[in-house]
Amino acid sequence: MTLLTRERIAERLQQLQADICKAIETTDGAATFSAENWERDGGGGGITRIIQHGRIIEKGGVNFSAVHGELPENIQRALKVEDNRFFATGVSIVQHPVNPNVPIIHMNVRYFELGNGQWWFGGGIDLTPHYVDEEDARWFHARLKAVCDKYDATWYPRFKTWADDYFFITHRNETRGIGGIFFDRLSGNEQEKERLFNFLIDVGEAFAPVYTRFMQKHADEPYGEAEKKWQLLRRGRYVEFNLVYDKGTRFGLDTGGRIESILMSLPEQAGWFYDHKPETGSREELTARYLVKGLRWD
Amino acid sequence: MTLLTRERIAERLQQLQADICKAIETTDGAATFSAENWERDGGGGGITRIIQHGRIIEKGGVNFSAVHGELPENIQRALKVEDNRFFATGVSIVQHPVNPNVPIIHMNVRYFELGNGQWWFGGGIDLTPHYVDEEDARWFHARLKAVCDKYDATWYPRFKTWADDYFFITHRNETRGIGGIFFDRLSGNEQEKERLFNFLIDVGEAFAPVYTRFMQKHADEPYGEAEKKWQLLRRGRYVEFNLVYDKGTRFGLDTGGRIESILMSLPEQAGWFYDHKPETGSREELTARYLVKGLRWD
Repeated sequence: MTLLTRERIAERLQQLQADICKAIETTDGAATFSAENWERDGGGGGITRIIQHGRIIEKGGVNFSAVHGELPENIQRALKVEDNRFFATGVSIVQHPVNPNVPIIHMNVRYFELGNGQWWFGGGIDLTPHYVDEEDARWFHARLKAVCDKYDATWYPRFKTWADDYFFITHRNETRGIGGIFFDRLSGNEQEKERLFNFLIDVGEAFAPVYTRFMQKHADEPYGEAEKKWQLLRRGRYVEFNLVYDKGTRFGLDTGGRIESILMSLPEQAGWFYDHKPETGSREELTARYLVKGLRWD
Repeated sequence: MTLLTRERIAERLQQLQADICKAIETTDGAATFSAENWERDGGGGGITRIIQHGRIIEKGGVNFSAVHGELPENIQRALKVEDNRFFATGVSIVQHPVNPNVPIIHMNVRYFELGNGQWWFGGGIDLTPHYVDEEDARWFHARLKAVCDKYDATWYPRFKTWADDYFFITHRNETRGIGGIFFDRLSGNEQEKERLFNFLIDVGEAFAPVYTRFMQKHADEPYGEAEKKWQLLRRGRYVEFNLVYDKGTRFGLDTGGRIESILMSLPEQAGWFYDHKPETGSREELTARYLVKGLRWD
């Protein structure tokens, strides 16, 4: 049995990055991913891969990083850990499509290790449709449930609730989208480590078939000015979540990560139209009604 | 002598709001301010005045509020105060112009009082030109210096440095614009209270002549697609500052203020173009060089 070292985890995640980029490129059919290798002053680095102005994707990032060094005090306090030496590796994805009928998607899978040997896995996938399509939402959650159920039948309901709570814009009292799964601090003994890692990779491998399906299904649907305006507004909420609440963004900014890699999650354009209220019964208003915690899609 | 009560302060600030709206409307010449009265669940309320799609102003807010109640624990801790009963009144302004040659401007003047009688004034004005005009920057700082010097010759250098430090986007290592003045916790005895209040009103009254001058000077200057793109990018940085760092925004979100009033500071549209780097020697690159702390404009 090969030991599950941090190097092996990082290598596998880097492979995942490559596979996902290839799948998105193939489906987009027009744009390809750039690749920037970067190094972090405090230790480690990453590969930032960005796709822009494609047929389907307006701006999307698939980032791999493997960084190490010392945690800033505020992060150490927030994590409630005894050791400040850390290693972290992960893949982070956000895709902002051209067509408002294609949803925004986010995925993150990560491994974290402290100097004292303590380790855990974390991650999640969540979907932010500009317009909620019930069939898509059910199919999306069913896929995530299937991945979870392979490992533990209690995980999907737990991780689904965790996502509802995490991807929540408190000051708007609305969820970012229709949720998905979120998990953190998954840990155990050496045998469980292998199993948890397999789960992490299964989550990562679920991404491409899920998102390319949505790309294919909706990319050619018609839309006009009203839909583009609503897309800008939903993207504005996405910006609010990422800058005000997202712990991953904050971790990156606080630990001196590469700014353009961290903020690749922000859309190319977003809007804030003062006190915009969708018309009763409109597609926009129907979507807003779905932005609440606790909806069951399975 | 009339006692300087919270009511008198709030009334005078409400008058300031009306005067500033009138001045902006007159100079814009096309759009007028809406007015929404709102009440806060925990106590008090405000008047939000928004101008949109004018000849010169694309989206601007001039907000008055007078709120009271109990401070959330995190705010009380951040303010390092013994009492959690508070009263706060102020005027907050952000103006986002149509033409990238007209600068974005922000002003805030506020009075804060605790249940135990402790009180202070705070506020500031800062300018965020999409393109730095040295003559404007010098004139702007000279006006602020003149207001400060009427009261205390040490204030302008102190409050100018304070603005450099406050309006700073740490993760970008750049200032939001060319700064201005920022001050907080100005306090003293009853006699000094009257004097500090006069200073606050002088700062507030400096706003209209300063900004309408910039509106008039630059509103008819030509611009094209490249300048609009740069404006979107500078607005993106403005959004980053307001959502990640601005204490006033955070105070509003945490104390349950009206969200659309607090976030009126965000532009109607903003952009994040991946890893955008202005060409050497371009107007954009020259502007970026000014976004550092410690430049002297007086």
